[in-house]
Amino acid sequence: MTRMADEPVPACDLQVDFPFDYAAHLSGDRRIGCLPEASRGAPIAVVGAAGGSGLAAAYELMRAGCRPVLFEAETSAEGPGGRRLGGRMYSRRIDDADSAVAELGCMRFPDSSKLLRQYARNFGGLHWQASRDNFAAVTPVTFLDMDGVGHETRSLADVGPESEQLHQAHTRWLQAIDDLGLHQLLREAADRDLPAVRRRWRALVDRFEQWTFYRFLRDEHGAGLNHAQARLLGTAGIGPGMWDSFFDLSMLEVLRMLTVTQGATHYFPLEGISALADGFWTHPTTGPDGRPVSLQESNAGVLRPEVTALDIEEDARRGVVVHSADGRSERFAAVIFTPQLHLLETTVEVRSTTPGASAFGPRMLRAIRRLNYWQSSKTLLVTREPFWEGTSLDGVTITDRLPRATYTTDYGPPKGAGGRRGVIDLSYTWGQDAMKISASGIEERVRLFVRELAAIHPGAAEELRRQAADGVALTVSWENQPNFRGMCRLSRPGDHPYQRDLFSHFMKDFAGRPAVPGEPHNALFLAGDDTAWSPGWLDHALASGINAAWGVLKLLGGGSDPGNPGPGDLWNDPDYTPLPTSAD
Amino acid sequence: MTRMADEPVPACDLQVDFPFDYAAHLSGDRRIGCLPEASRGAPIAVVGAAGGSGLAAAYELMRAGCRPVLFEAETSAEGPGGRRLGGRMYSRRIDDADSAVAELGCMRFPDSSKLLRQYARNFGGLHWQASRDNFAAVTPVTFLDMDGVGHETRSLADVGPESEQLHQAHTRWLQAIDDLGLHQLLREAADRDLPAVRRRWRALVDRFEQWTFYRFLRDEHGAGLNHAQARLLGTAGIGPGMWDSFFDLSMLEVLRMLTVTQGATHYFPLEGISALADGFWTHPTTGPDGRPVSLQESNAGVLRPEVTALDIEEDARRGVVVHSADGRSERFAAVIFTPQLHLLETTVEVRSTTPGASAFGPRMLRAIRRLNYWQSSKTLLVTREPFWEGTSLDGVTITDRLPRATYTTDYGPPKGAGGRRGVIDLSYTWGQDAMKISASGIEERVRLFVRELAAIHPGAAEELRRQAADGVALTVSWENQPNFRGMCRLSRPGDHPYQRDLFSHFMKDFAGRPAVPGEPHNALFLAGDDTAWSPGWLDHALASGINAAWGVLKLLGGGSDPGNPGPGDLWNDPDYTPLPTSAD
Repeated sequence: MTRMADEPVPACDLQVDFPFDYAAHLSGDRRIGCLPEASRGAPIAVVGAAGGSGLAAAYELMRAGCRPVLFEAETSAEGPGGRRLGGRMYSRRIDDADSAVAELGCMRFPDSSKLLRQYARNFGGLHWQASRDNFAAVTPVTFLDMDGVGHETRSLADVGPESEQLHQAHTRWLQAIDDLGLHQLLREAADRDLPAVRRRWRALVDRFEQWTFYRFLRDEHGAGLNHAQARLLGTAGIGPGMWDSFFDLSMLEVLRMLTVTQGATHYFPLEGISALADGFWTHPTTGPDGRPVSLQESNAGVLRPEVTALDIEEDARRGVVVHSADGRSERFAAVIFTPQLHLLETTVEVRSTTPGASAFGPRMLRAIRRLNYWQSSKTLLVTREPFWEGTSLDGVTITDRLPRATYTTDYGPPKGAGGRRGVIDLSYTWGQDAMKISASGIEERVRLFVRELAAIHPGAAEELRRQAADGVALTVSWENQPNFRGMCRLSRPGDHPYQRDLFSHFMKDFAGRPAVPGEPHNALFLAGDDTAWSPGWLDHALASGINAAWGVLKLLGGGSDPGNPGPGDLWNDPDYTPLPTSAD
Repeated sequence: MTRMADEPVPACDLQVDFPFDYAAHLSGDRRIGCLPEASRGAPIAVVGAAGGSGLAAAYELMRAGCRPVLFEAETSAEGPGGRRLGGRMYSRRIDDADSAVAELGCMRFPDSSKLLRQYARNFGGLHWQASRDNFAAVTPVTFLDMDGVGHETRSLADVGPESEQLHQAHTRWLQAIDDLGLHQLLREAADRDLPAVRRRWRALVDRFEQWTFYRFLRDEHGAGLNHAQARLLGTAGIGPGMWDSFFDLSMLEVLRMLTVTQGATHYFPLEGISALADGFWTHPTTGPDGRPVSLQESNAGVLRPEVTALDIEEDARRGVVVHSADGRSERFAAVIFTPQLHLLETTVEVRSTTPGASAFGPRMLRAIRRLNYWQSSKTLLVTREPFWEGTSLDGVTITDRLPRATYTTDYGPPKGAGGRRGVIDLSYTWGQDAMKISASGIEERVRLFVRELAAIHPGAAEELRRQAADGVALTVSWENQPNFRGMCRLSRPGDHPYQRDLFSHFMKDFAGRPAVPGEPHNALFLAGDDTAWSPGWLDHALASGINAAWGVLKLLGGGSDPGNPGPGDLWNDPDYTPLPTSAD
C-alpha cells in the first residue's frame, strides 16, 4: 500500500491506451501532413460531419489539400443549408438579448482537453469559466439529499458525523484508487514517461478487464465497501457524472474517466460550445498552397442532407459512392463516418459493391453490433436572474430522488434589455434514471423535477415554482433522437476488445499488417467518440477525427510532415500500439 | 464435481426464495380466507387493476368478501369503460375472421406455471399449444446466424464442427450449472423438501449475490469461458430469452430464471393470453355468503380511469384516499398498487396525510428508486398463411444481427373466410438491442427486420418481402409506453436486498415485527411482477397479487381459513422467511 499523495496531481491530457499527443501534433500552424500533387482536391465525404470528430477531420483534411464535403442529418432552421452544426455540441440561446446558453449536449470540459482548447484558441478564443460542479472550488454549495436528509456541503468530508457510512465509503474509495497507482500514472503521463504509463496501464487492464464498477466497490480486492456504503457513494458520486447509474460499467471505463477528470478543473465557454462547431465551419485557414480556405466556403455555405447508404468499393482506390436523402449519388475518394456506430444497423446502410463481400470484417461487425449506448436526459430552465443565489440551491444538488443532479449557472449580464442570464439544469440523468422520464413530455418533466427540488429546498421552493412558470424550459432525451439513439457509448465488461478494434479501424493495413485482422482495406474510415477510448469527451472525439484524417491522407498517398509523425506513424511503437486483450 | 443428471428434471413451480405453493393454496374452491362480518363489503382500490397481479388480487378479495374497485390507466376503444384489460397480457386480433393473435406482451408460459393454469381452467379453459421456442421439440428449425454463417439446427449440439467454440461453451455452461446443484434443487422443490431447497439456495445466494451473469460465464469459478465462447453463447442464448442482452444481470436473477424454465415446456393459449384477463373480469364466482359475484358486475362493467395520487393515512384503519383522472376522490379501506414501481416517482403520487411523514419507509424508498427496468421491443407481422413452412424460417431464427430473435406461429384454420392464421415475430429484443430501434417508427422497423431476415434466409426472402407488403404489422417498445416505461424489472448485483424488501412489503408488521424495518403499517399494499422474485413471469405476478390480498385481508381483521395457511401465515417458518442479504 502506498501513501496517499499530498501534492496535486496534474490532469491527464492523453488517452492512456494510446498516449499520442494530438495537441502537440497540431500546435502552431502544424498540419496532419500533405497530399501528393495528384491527390490535391480529392473529394472526401464526411458523414455526420457537423459533430466534433467530423468537423476536426474535415478541417484538417482541407488544410492538407483535400476537398471535404459535409453531410449532416440533424436539421435547424438557422443552420447552413437548414442543417444543425454541432452534433452533441448543442447550445441553444433562446433570444439574442440573453447571455444564458442552454447546453443540451456536452457541457463541461476538463482543462486536460488540450486539443479542444487549442482549436478554440485558433478560432479566436472562447471565454472559459470554471464549471460549478459538485464539490468544485467555485461551487458555493453542493447539497446532498440522501434518504430524505439534506447535507449542505463543500466537500464530501463535510458529511462526516451525519453520514459516517458515506464518509467511510469515500475514504476507502480514495485509498483504493491510490493503491492502484492512479496518481503515479497521471504523473508519468504528465512527465511523458510513456514506457512507465504503458507498464502501469497494462497491469490495470489485465487485472480489471472483467470487472464492473460495482464489483470494484464491493470486492475485498477493490474498495471493499458494504452494500450501504456502495449505495451512498453511488448516490453522492465519485466525480462529475459518475453515479450508481454506471455501476455496471467496465472498471476500465471508470479508470479512464478518472484519468481524464482527476486533478482537472472543468470549464464551460460563455459562448456555448456550439461556437466551437461554428469555428471549425467558418474559420479561414490556408490550404497546402497557402491559399485561404474555409469549410463554409468550400462547401458553398451548405451542409448536405443525411446519407442513406454508402457503397464501398473493395478496391480502395475506387473510393465510395455516397447516397443522400436529396437523391444524389456521388463518388468520393474516401468517406469518414462519424455518427454513433449503432446507426450502421438502422439508419445508414453500408454495402460492399462486391457481391458477397462486406465493407467490414467480422471483428468490426461484432464490435458494432455489441456496443453499449446509454440513455441520458437533461431538462433545463432558462431564467432572467440567478434566483438561486443565497439559497441551498446555489450550486449543485445531488439527490437519490428523481432529478438526481441539478446544476445552476449564471452567464452574467445579459446582452440586451430584458435578456436572460440564468440556467438551472433541473435534472441531468443517465441510464435507468433517464429511462424513468424518457416517455414524459416537457411539461410533466418540469412539474416533477420542480416538485422534488421544492421538497429538497423548502427555502427556495416558492421562487423555484415562480421561475418555472415564468422561464423557458428545454429538454432532451438522447435515446429518443433518431440520429443518436443514446447519449454515448460506454463499455461493459467484455467490450474492451471491441473498443480496441474500433480505435484501430483507421489503421487499415497501413502499419504492415491489418490492425484489425480480417478488416478490408477500403476507403471507409470510422470516427466519433465511440471509436475513442473514453467516449463522452469532446477532446477524444476530436482526436478520433484526426485519426481518420491520417488514414485518408495515407490512403491518398500522402503522409505526415517530416519530424511530426501522426497517430498512425507511431502505431508499431511499443509505447503506443494498443495492448492485447482477453479476446486475443 | 457431480455427474450430469441423466433423468429429466421437473420444472419448478415454486419461487425458490419463498417456496409457497400458491396453486395448492387456491385449488378447488379454496379461498384466501374470509373477512369478519363487520368488514364485509369493504371497498378496496386496485390500481393498475387490469394486469395479472391486480386482477388476481381483486378476484380473490372479492371471493373473500371485499368490494374491489378497479382503476386502469391504459385505454382501449373496446375495453370496459374505454380501458384496456390485461396490462402486459396484451393480445391483439386484427379481425374477427382471424385465428391469429399478436401477443405484444407476455407470450410463453412454462408448464411450471401452476397458478396461472389453474385460473385458466377455472375460467373455462384455454387451448394451450407448445411454443415454438429455440430448440423446442415442436420447432422444426432453430436457425443460428452468427458471424455471417447460418446453421440449421435442432439442438445446440448440431453446430459442433462448424462452431467448436460454441459447442464447448454450451458444454461448459451445462457442466457449470450442474456443478451448482441446480438439478438437485429442482428435484428437492418437486419433492417439497423445503429445508433442502433452503439450504441449497442459501449457499447460492451467498456465493453469487455480487456476480453478474457475464462474470459467471467468464470466471474460472463459474463456466470459465473465453471471450469468444461467452460471445457465442450469449448470441445463441441459454434458454428462451436469455441472451447477451442480459450479461449485466445479477447471476441470482439468471439462476431464478433457470429454476422456472429448466425442464419446462413453454405453451401459449390459442385464444391469446388476454383471454385470461377477460376470465378474471367476467367469470362468475361466489362471495363468502355463496351469492354469485363477478368483478365485471361489481364494477358495473367499468374500469375506472388512471389514478393520479394516493393519500395514505398513517392510521391504517382510516385507509387511503384515491384521486383519479376523472376528478373523483374517494376513501377506500385499502389500496393495492400494481403498476411498475418506478411509476411511483413519475405518474402516481403517493403521499402521507401526516405532515412530514412518508407512505414508505426509507428502505422501501431506496428499493423503489434503485430498481432496474429493461427495454423490450417486438415487431410482429400477421399473415394469411404460415408462409415460412418448409423454409429455413420455419421455427426460430437466432442472429447477431438487428432482429436478434424471430419466432413463427401458426394459429390454425381461420375463424372466418379470408381470416389470417400466421404470426411472424420479426424481432423480439431486450436492452441494448431494443434501444437500437426504440426511436424508429413501425415502417422503418419492418423494413429493417425484413432486410436482415431476407439476407439470413435467401430461400424465403422473396415471399417474406411479399408478406411484409401484404400483412398487418404491429409493434411495441415497452419503454416508450408511459404507463410502463420498460418491459419489466430485472436485477443487477446490489439489487437483491431491494427485491427482498419489495417482496416483504405486504407483510407490514403482521408477523410480530415489521417485515421491512422502518416500514409504516398503513393500508397501502404493493403487487406486480416487480415485487416478485422473478419478474417477467405471469405466474409470479399472480402470486404477488395473492400476497397483497392476504395483507388486505389481515388488515381488515380477516384471515386464512383453518388448515389452509396463506403466504403471510408461514412468514416466520424458517423454510419460508426470506434469507438475509448482504445489506443486513
